[in-house]
Formats: sequence, C-alpha cells, structure tokens
Amino acid sequence: MDTTSFGIAIMAAGKGTRLKSKRAKVLHEIGGRPLLMHVIAAAETVAPPDRIYCIIGHHADNVRTVAVSTGVHFVMQAEQKGTGHALQVLKKHFSFTGQKVPQHLLVLSGDVPLIRPETLQQMCSFHLEQHAAMTILTAVPPNPTGYGRVLRKSPGDPEVLAIVEQKDLAPDQLATPEINSGIYCFETESLFANLSRLSDQNASGEFYLTDIAGLLAAEGKRVIAIKADHIDEVLGANTIAEMMHLDAAMRLATARKLMAAGVTIFRPETTVIDSMVEVGADTTIEPYVQLLGNTRIGQDCRIRSYSVIQNSTIGDGVLVRNGCILDSATVGRCAVLGPYSHLRPRSDIGEDAHVGNFVETKNIRLGRGSKANHLNYLGDADIGAGVNVGAGAITCNYDGVHKHKTTIGDGAFIGSDSTLIAPVTVGDGAYIAAGSSITEDVPAGALALGRSRQTTKPGWVASRKKKTS
Amino acid sequence: MDTTSFGIAIMAAGKGTRLKSKRAKVLHEIGGRPLLMHVIAAAETVAPPDRIYCIIGHHADNVRTVAVSTGVHFVMQAEQKGTGHALQVLKKHFSFTGQKVPQHLLVLSGDVPLIRPETLQQMCSFHLEQHAAMTILTAVPPNPTGYGRVLRKSPGDPEVLAIVEQKDLAPDQLATPEINSGIYCFETESLFANLSRLSDQNASGEFYLTDIAGLLAAEGKRVIAIKADHIDEVLGANTIAEMMHLDAAMRLATARKLMAAGVTIFRPETTVIDSMVEVGADTTIEPYVQLLGNTRIGQDCRIRSYSVIQNSTIGDGVLVRNGCILDSATVGRCAVLGPYSHLRPRSDIGEDAHVGNFVETKNIRLGRGSKANHLNYLGDADIGAGVNVGAGAITCNYDGVHKHKTTIGDGAFIGSDSTLIAPVTVGDGAYIAAGSSITEDVPAGALALGRSRQTTKPGWVASRKKKTS
Amino acid sequence: MDTTSFGIAIMAAGKGTRLKSKRAKVLHEIGGRPLLMHVIAAAETVAPPDRIYCIIGHHADNVRTVAVSTGVHFVMQAEQKGTGHALQVLKKHFSFTGQKVPQHLLVLSGDVPLIRPETLQQMCSFHLEQHAAMTILTAVPPNPTGYGRVLRKSPGDPEVLAIVEQKDLAPDQLATPEINSGIYCFETESLFANLSRLSDQNASGEFYLTDIAGLLAAEGKRVIAIKADHIDEVLGANTIAEMMHLDAAMRLATARKLMAAGVTIFRPETTVIDSMVEVGADTTIEPYVQLLGNTRIGQDCRIRSYSVIQNSTIGDGVLVRNGCILDSATVGRCAVLGPYSHLRPRSDIGEDAHVGNFVETKNIRLGRGSKANHLNYLGDADIGAGVNVGAGAITCNYDGVHKHKTTIGDGAFIGSDSTLIAPVTVGDGAYIAAGSSITEDVPAGALALGRSRQTTKPGWVASRKKKTS
Repeated sequence: MDTTSFGIAIMAAGKGTRLKSKRAKVLHEIGGRPLLMHVIAAAETVAPPDRIYCIIGHHADNVRTVAVSTGVHFVMQAEQKGTGHALQVLKKHFSFTGQKVPQHLLVLSGDVPLIRPETLQQMCSFHLEQHAAMTILTAVPPNPTGYGRVLRKSPGDPEVLAIVEQKDLAPDQLATPEINSGIYCFETESLFANLSRLSDQNASGEFYLTDIAGLLAAEGKRVIAIKADHIDEVLGANTIAEMMHLDAAMRLATARKLMAAGVTIFRPETTVIDSMVEVGADTTIEPYVQLLGNTRIGQDCRIRSYSVIQNSTIGDGVLVRNGCILDSATVGRCAVLGPYSHLRPRSDIGEDAHVGNFVETKNIRLGRGSKANHLNYLGDADIGAGVNVGAGAITCNYDGVHKHKTTIGDGAFIGSDSTLIAPVTVGDGAYIAAGSSITEDVPAGALALGRSRQTTKPGWVASRKKKTS
Repeated sequence: MDTTSFGIAIMAAGKGTRLKSKRAKVLHEIGGRPLLMHVIAAAETVAPPDRIYCIIGHHADNVRTVAVSTGVHFVMQAEQKGTGHALQVLKKHFSFTGQKVPQHLLVLSGDVPLIRPETLQQMCSFHLEQHAAMTILTAVPPNPTGYGRVLRKSPGDPEVLAIVEQKDLAPDQLATPEINSGIYCFETESLFANLSRLSDQNASGEFYLTDIAGLLAAEGKRVIAIKADHIDEVLGANTIAEMMHLDAAMRLATARKLMAAGVTIFRPETTVIDSMVEVGADTTIEPYVQLLGNTRIGQDCRIRSYSVIQNSTIGDGVLVRNGCILDSATVGRCAVLGPYSHLRPRSDIGEDAHVGNFVETKNIRLGRGSKANHLNYLGDADIGAGVNVGAGAITCNYDGVHKHKTTIGDGAFIGSDSTLIAPVTVGDGAYIAAGSSITEDVPAGALALGRSRQTTKPGWVASRKKKTS
Repeated sequence: MDTTSFGIAIMAAGKGTRLKSKRAKVLHEIGGRPLLMHVIAAAETVAPPDRIYCIIGHHADNVRTVAVSTGVHFVMQAEQKGTGHALQVLKKHFSFTGQKVPQHLLVLSGDVPLIRPETLQQMCSFHLEQHAAMTILTAVPPNPTGYGRVLRKSPGDPEVLAIVEQKDLAPDQLATPEINSGIYCFETESLFANLSRLSDQNASGEFYLTDIAGLLAAEGKRVIAIKADHIDEVLGANTIAEMMHLDAAMRLATARKLMAAGVTIFRPETTVIDSMVEVGADTTIEPYVQLLGNTRIGQDCRIRSYSVIQNSTIGDGVLVRNGCILDSATVGRCAVLGPYSHLRPRSDIGEDAHVGNFVETKNIRLGRGSKANHLNYLGDADIGAGVNVGAGAITCNYDGVHKHKTTIGDGAFIGSDSTLIAPVTVGDGAYIAAGSSITEDVPAGALALGRSRQTTKPGWVASRKKKTS
C-alpha cells in the first residue's frame, strides 16, 4: 500500500500517574525495549522517521535521549492539556518550522506497544479507500465496561454515529461492544481546520481529540471505524502489573515463533527472548535462559539453564553450559562454554575452543581448540590455537595507569596459577611453569619459570604448637 | 477496638500425618516462615505475647525452639485427644500456674497461616458487641463438600443453630454453603465450665470443641457466627502440595503490592519475595530474583536474574548483576555488583564501589569507589576508598589457628594474583606488584614486591620432548 | 498377566516434517529422554527386548545409536510407505532372519511417549480374553475433530464396526467421541495373512494399517476396541510446542509424586526432575532446581535454587546452596556445598565436608570434615579428613603431557593461593605456607614454603609518577 501521503504523530507526553514512577510512562520497558520504541518501530513500517513526530512533555529530555537515534522529530508539549491540545501543538510546530504538512496523519499512542504493522497498513488503506476525514481504530474486548464506545450508524456500516464515553452511554448503548482505541487516521487539512474549535469546558479542563469526530460529522465529512483483529494490539498499560502482562505475552509469542521454526525450547514461558533474536533449527534452549538484544545462535547448539546471552553471535554446534553470561561476544562453531563462564565485550572464542568455570574474558581472541577451563581472568589478550591455559592463570593487563596486551603463541602451555604481567609475549609452543610470575617475553619453545624454590622445615608444626600453647 | 480482655490459644500440637513428614506440621514453611510464625504474627495484632498460649505436642521441643523468641507461652498437650482436650489442658495450665485467665479466648489453628489481622479484629469486636459465649468464624468456599457446616437459625441471623459434620448433614442441609473454620472466640468462663462435659464417645475417641456449641446453646448462652471475607484466610494446609499453593499465593500478593507502589517486577510470579521486604519506586526486579528476610532495596536499582538477597540493605541506584548472593550485607548507592558476587555477612560495600565476578567478601569494608572485580577472596579486611584490587588477589585471613585482619589504605593498588598474608597493613597509595606474597606492612606510597625473578630456558620444550620420547 | 505370546513392533521410521528439524522425530527429547526411549521402557513391561522390533527409517543410524543399549531389534524400512508397509517389512524380516514370529503383536508408536504400562497390560489381556484378531486402543479427547474415529457395533460392545477418517464421517457420525490411537494388538497370523491385501491406491499412496480392520472383519475375524483411561497416553507430539507441553506435564507429575511422599518442593512447576530421581522425606527443594538422571537425594536436605544435580548421590542432611552444578558426584551426610560449587565426575565429598564458592572438583576424595571453600581447583587428588584448603589453592594435575595425582594427609593445612604441583604428597598435619608453589613431597608435620621474601621500596609510587609525568 502506498502510505507516502501519511505522517505520524505519537503521543508521548503523558505522566502515567498510576505507575507511581518518576520515569516517563513511555520509557517503561517491555520485551527488552521502552514502550515508545515499540511504537516507533511499528510507525516506521508506515512512514520514514522524518515524517514521524513524537509529542513529548513529561521527562522530555529523557524521552528524547532514548529515542533520538531513531531520527524521528520531537515536538514539545510543555503543558499537557489533552490529546486535542497535543495536536494543536503539532499544528503550530508545522507552521513555525515550515516543515511540510503531510496530507494524512496517523495518530498513535506511545504507551500502546503491541500495535501491529499489518493493522496500521489496513487502517491507512481503509482510510484512503473510504475517502475518510477521520478513521477510528476500534477493538472488541471481553468486557467493554469503562471504555469509550464507538457507535456505528448501523451494524457493519463503516460510518460512525458518535464516540460516547462510558458515563454518557444511554441504557440501550451499554452493551455496545466496540471500543475506541485512541488510534486514528485524519485527513490533515480537515483536522487542523477544526482543532481551534475544540473546547476545554469539561470536568478535566482538557481538549479532547474525540470531539473532532462530531465537528467533522457536522461539516458533512466522513468519519469511519475499522476494527483491529486482536484486542491486545490496542491495550495500553496503565499499571506496572499490566505492563508485565504485556511483556510476558510478547516474549511467549517470540518463543512460539522459534519453536515453530524447529528450535526446541523447554518451558518456553520461562525464557526471556527478545524479538530480534535468531536461533537455528535443532538448537535446544533449556528453561530459564535469556537471549537478549541482537543475538544470533546457530544450529544444533544447546544453551543450558540460567545462561544470559546478549548481543552475541554463536556458531553451530556450540554447547553453553549453565549460568554463562555473554555480552557482545563471538563464539566459533563447536566451542564449549561454562558452566559460569563470563564473556565480556570483544571476546572472540575460536572453533572447538573451551572456556570453563569461573573464567572471565574481555577483549580477547582465544584461538581454535584452545582451552581456558578454570578460574582464569583473561583480558586484552591475543591467544593462539591449541593453547592450554592452566587453572587460575591470570593476565595482568592493568598496571594502575595503563592497560597492556598479552600475546600467546600457538600451542603454548600456560601453567596453573601463573601470572602473565602485560605487556608480554609468550612464543609458540613455549611452556610457563605453574605458579610463575612472567614479566619478560618468552621465546618460542622456551621454558619460563618465575617461582621460588621450596624450603621444607620438618617438625615445624609440633614446635609451633609448643610455642603457642 | 479494645481487645485487652482477650487471650489467645493457638493449636500447634498436631502431627499432620498426610504430610508424610517427620517435622511438626506447624513447622513447615511457606512464605519464608513456618506456618506457626504466621499465625503468631496475626495473633500479636490482637494480644501481646504474654497472653498467647501455644498448645504444643508433636515435636514439642522443636516447635518451642522455633517460636520461643516471640515470647508466647507454651502449654504441653502430651497426648493429642482432640481440640476439646487441648483446651482442657489449657484450663489445667491456668489453674496450675495461677496465670490470669483472660475473660475471652480467641482460638486459632497453628496450620491456618493466611488469617488476616483485620478478620481477627472484626471477629473479636463482633463477639463483644453481641455478648456471645461463642463466636464461630465461617467462610464460603467454592465447594463446601467435606467440611463441617454452620447452620444459622435463619439466613442473616448471627445466631447459630448447630455445627454439623458432612456425614451428619440432612439431605436439605447438603447445600449449606457456610463452613466452620475452626477459629473461635469464647467467653472463657462459659467455655471452661463446659469443657468437662465434652465426651470422647465417638468414632475417633477424641474430645471435639465443636460440641461446646450445643452445650452452650442448651444453657441458653449465645452462639453466633461471623463470615470471613476471603476463603483463603481459613484454609489449612493438609498436604505439601496445598502448602506450596499457599506459598505461591502469598508471594505473588507481595509482588503485586510492590508493583502497585512503582516497582517494576518482570514475571512477578517467578520472584520469591518475603513479605517484610521493602523496595523503592523505579527499581527493576528481573525474573527469578529472590528477596528474603529483612531486606531493603532503594530506588532506581536494577536487580538482575538469579540473584538472591537476604537480610541486606541496598542503597539507591545500585546495579546487582546476574547470580549475586548477598547475605546480611550493606551496599552503598550506585555501587555495582556481579555477576556472581558473593557477599557474606558484614560485607559493607561503599558508594560507587564495584565488586565483580567470582568475588567473595566476608566481614569487610570496601571504601567508596574501590574495585574488586575478578576472582577475589576478601575476608576480615578494611579497605579504603579508591583502591584497585587486581584479579585473583586474596586476603589470607586464617593461619590455621586464628583469623587476622588486613588493612588497605585509600588509593592503594593491589596487583593481580597477590596474596596479602594477615595481619598486614598496606598504606595509602601503596603499590603491590602482581604475583606478590605480602607478609610485612607496606608504608604509604611504597612499592612492595614478593615474587621471584623470571628464568627462561630456551629450547627446553624440544629437549623435553626428546627425553620423554 | 501372561504376555509371553506377545512381540512388539514400535513405529520409529517417521520424519516428523512439522517439527522443522533435521533430527528424527523419535529422538526429540521430553522428560530428559528421547521419545522412543519412553516407548521402549513401556514396551519392556510387556515383553523382553529380544521380542521388541523397532522399525526405523529416517536417520536410522542415529536412532539405532540411541536405542542400541536397550537390546531391542532394529528393522530397516528403507522407504516410508505407511504403517501397513512397515509391518510388511517386519514380516519379511521374520522370514529372512528366521526369528520366531510371536503369536500376538502389539504395535506401538515411537512418538507417543506417555503410554502407560498399565494400559498396555489391560489391552493385551483384553485382546487374549476376547480371542480378538485385532484390538484397537481408543481414547476420548475433549474435541475429537480431525482424528480417525472408531465406530462400535453398538454402544458398549467391544466389537468394532469400522475405523473412519474424519473426512469420511457421515453427518450422524461426526459426534463419535472415540478416536483411534494408532496402538493395536494383532493375532499375528491373521495380520500377516492380510498384509499383502492392503492397497496403496489412495491419496497419499501409502499402505494403511487401519485397512486391516475391514479385511479381518470380512473374514469373520473379531476386531475389538478398548478405551485408555487418559487421553494424554495416546497423544503424539506433532510440533515442538506440543512436545514441550508433554515435557512439562511429565515433570510436574514427578514433582507431585515426590511431594506426596513428604518432599517439600517450592514452586513445583519450576523444577526439572527426571522420573527416576529419588528424594527422601523432609528434604526441601527450592524453586528452579534441576534433579536429573540417576540421582538420589537423602532426607532432611535442602537444595537451593538454580542448582543442577545429575547422576549423583547425596546423603542425609546435606545443604546444597544456590547455583551448584553436580555431575556424577557423591556427597556424604551433612556436607555443605556452594554457592556455585562445581562437582565434576568422581568427586567424592566426605561427611561434614565443605565445598564453597567458585570451587571446582574432579576425580577427588575430600575427607570427612575437610574444607575447600574459596576459588579452588582440585583435580585428581586424594585429600584426607580435617584438611583446610585455603582460598585460591590449586592442584596442578596436568603438565602438558600427563595427569598426575596430589595426595594430602589428614589435618594438613594448605595455605591460600598455594600451588600443589603434582605428583606430590603432603603428609598428615603438614602446613603449606600461603602463596607457595609446592613441587616436592612434604613430610607429616612439616612446614613447606615456596615463595619469595618481600622487598619494599619506600617512596616508589611518587618517583614513578615523576618519571611518567
């Protein structure tokens, strides 16, 4: 469908008093992203960022900071005097900035995050086909009580008779099932012509956008409604409990999509999987796993419970044992991690390599088939293939002033509990004796020792006991 | 309401045969506390501990041990011959000890843990207002079959006609919806006067307290009923599965209460939060987190998954990464912990300080902005501000006989893999070289080394291969 | 019941296209075991492995590899041309191999894993008693639409009129509640006589075993049906989501069984407990615990959250703190583990011993009351009773070529951060100084040191700053 004539306004100025939160309502997170970012993502399927206008107010700076990278416009609504007022502010924005007024305006709520691109497309299409001045997105919840209701001229007729608030419903209108979602399309000229005619002479002293429907109808303009397929799409989150419900629903949908594509996910409702995550077929995800951000996992992997993988790329056939934490790491095919490996950013683990328990890596390359299996800290290191890093061996990359690099050649053996004091290079096939502190480069094939010779004092324990008793 | 004329008896002598457990039934735990402790806590809202009488029998010593700190009285029911018998024992207790008999007696079940203080208050009030000799707490479950039923003289009449067991219900009484909860108020003199008239000539050979209702009514005394708002309040747990159900319900209620106060709790049903825990607004709790005991968490924190925090105090803005275990720790504002930090009792972590992965602390102070980020054991140490503790550095606090203290001054640098052998003091700004064993005090600004010089043997690897082949 | 006249065919050749998986359908796992292994286990309650015939096709080698240890026969169905064709292949197998044809044949589906032994027994009994040529196992699902339906001659009559596919049901047959499970008993001679009469002249070009019912009936043979008690028993898993559902149901049943036997399991639906696991009464299992494989846990233990215990034996009164990973370990009574202990195969932890945080063990004995509480790697070691292993102490069991053993006598003290370079023996009561590298045997009662003396350079930090600035 051609939506080039559409601009989009996103209502993101509200406070969300019922949340009991200092944060702006639209910055609360579900599915790993702020509510607003979900709405912007949906909006971007209809129009490019330079035709999207975020109307901000409460915590405007924070909202702007979070969303600025999307490239949308921000329009400041300094006082919050209702949805009608928000569009009055937008109208002024166009006249002040000289930015081009779009022919049609899609109005979204920044706190209604599950709206689907398909629904927006259908709505915009319908709006154009029907030559409407205003198109209202409706939905049919299990219990409509409390919601503003949309009355059609007759059942099935696209044309709307009125939008009526719960308290104003006549007795025979109480059963009206269709509710107003607060999502609209407008023919912009008709909308803008009527904005100044809105009144704030009501209980809350606000300008209501819903009143536009009556004004347009009075002018003989066409006001129509289209129903969303799923009630979830138009649900706002007014309490934290409601948001948490949306979050769980969104993530379960992601897990189900992956299962349908051949991924085995035990206890799918317990996993936390962001919507962008990709997982190959025949990979098994155990309960309580979290796959976050821009993560890609290959085929035939097994990700064991309590592991959290964020912004990382995992090759085929990788085994991630329990409790691993990965952030911005790359793991080659058939590597084995964990349990309790912690891979921090720029950890590049080679094919068939092993990273074991209580091992932390940061900014390292670990070559093909190399092993660092026990209680290591490896930071700022380039480690070749076939290297064995013994238990407790540590790279000292920080001297209190600068960070330095450790280089270890292919096939080297780094003895247990040794300390590699960077900058230092260990050559191919070199051998570091256990317990050594290494401060100087070690040539290929050499042995390096840096530990004291043992002294033994027979009978010492008995004599100490005598002294201390 | 004035409840000064009330004493309380808590039935806590039973075995709980259906639990298949060696432990006393009332010592099984839900919501982080034994059933009995929940009941005592509710009782204490009506009367002080010195007017509460726990009637104990099975595993009496264990029950006493668990509850003794509350200051309630314990009355031994050596043989368990029914609820009527339990109060006969209590009557004897008063006459033997000369303790003052309360004018009214509230009788609670030690295995009915969800009873609410509000309900007890209403019940006691109603008992006094109505000048009743016996007041029965009732409830209306979805399916009353199997329960003893309370028949009122007429619908809405407070006065009770009879308490009838399921098997004795007439056909037209089978639909009686109101059940006997086993919780009662008595005018004590009337109760005690009738206890000796109870009979054990029945199928189970026990003295039933329910029979008192008939005896009092025969004397023309007033026997009334009051209905609890929630059926949950009067549910006992007869099987472990039922207890686990009560446990989950209690914890979910706690999570919901926190969410309503501005705390974001993802997957609230997966968290384990004790009822006394306090959490500030705008703190985020990720799935699978446990907050136990007397824990207080500030505002704007994030507690990541799989962390367990017990009896600890966490300042504002703290980030607790995945899998941290805290017990009786204090953490200053904006500190960062984890993943996999283990803070044991008397760990005092300063503002902006960092404790990292695979680090254990015990009885330490870590000053403002100090960092111990990798594979450390820090015990019995006083560490100043701005200190950097390198990877794998360890305090040796135990010499096989005594524990000793390590003191580290502000701004000191403790090199990786160094060993601080206590008692030892490292002065302000001192520098410990990586891999050193430190046994003597280091003055402020000094460098201390305690490691061997490196020896390198070129060609050693090739020559070893020759030897071993 | 006497089932000696029965052989069993298990259909395990299918592809499971809807799974989107490269793996054979019957190798997908639920409850910790491949689907096929559940079916073989049920089959073995009716007949020994040498009378069980697995008909394999897709990924035949993988299926064989997984199931070969059970001792069942494998029959290759190279082309998959329907269930009737599978038994034609089996018939040929008998004639080629000369293996004895069983008098009766029970036909099971390799992807229907919840079938209960009791049901199979009842079905076989009924088949014999009724002198049937074919007995069909049926079930009554909540909604039978889509399933093949079994029509009886009259309600309650064991005799079957026909098996009718959904699309062939007459309007008055649409409500027939009884479905064909695909599980059958046959009198083998009658079956085999009719197999060649099956036709593949149908939409899918396959030979259907259901058509045998009509052929037998036409010969005047008795075709009967028996209904399974639970619909779950006959449910196949056609999608991964369905398998995950069966998995959760199976594990919850295991948790409920343990609770009924006196085990306290908080949030039972969150635990992952394999069906063979044994747990003693009065043991408490916290949420998110996994007990896998052939694991036995004693009484009065507490297993804290996020621990995963596989193929291990745990004595009475053991405390396993959070996040422990045990694989093929043995833990003596009243031992304390964790948090975050990792016990790898052949770890034998003595009574009252302690293994603490970030400690890995492999192929070790840790004697009674010994402690290794902080950041240790202990591999290939025999450690006596009453030993204290200090923080960060490590056994170096690998020299790059061979693994060697460390032996530590009773009552020895192994100082923090010491490195025991195997092969090495530390005698009873010997004392290893903190930070030492130990390469030579230490006699009983001796002190061994292997560290450098400390050098201190006053004023070094200030002079370095001068140099570097």
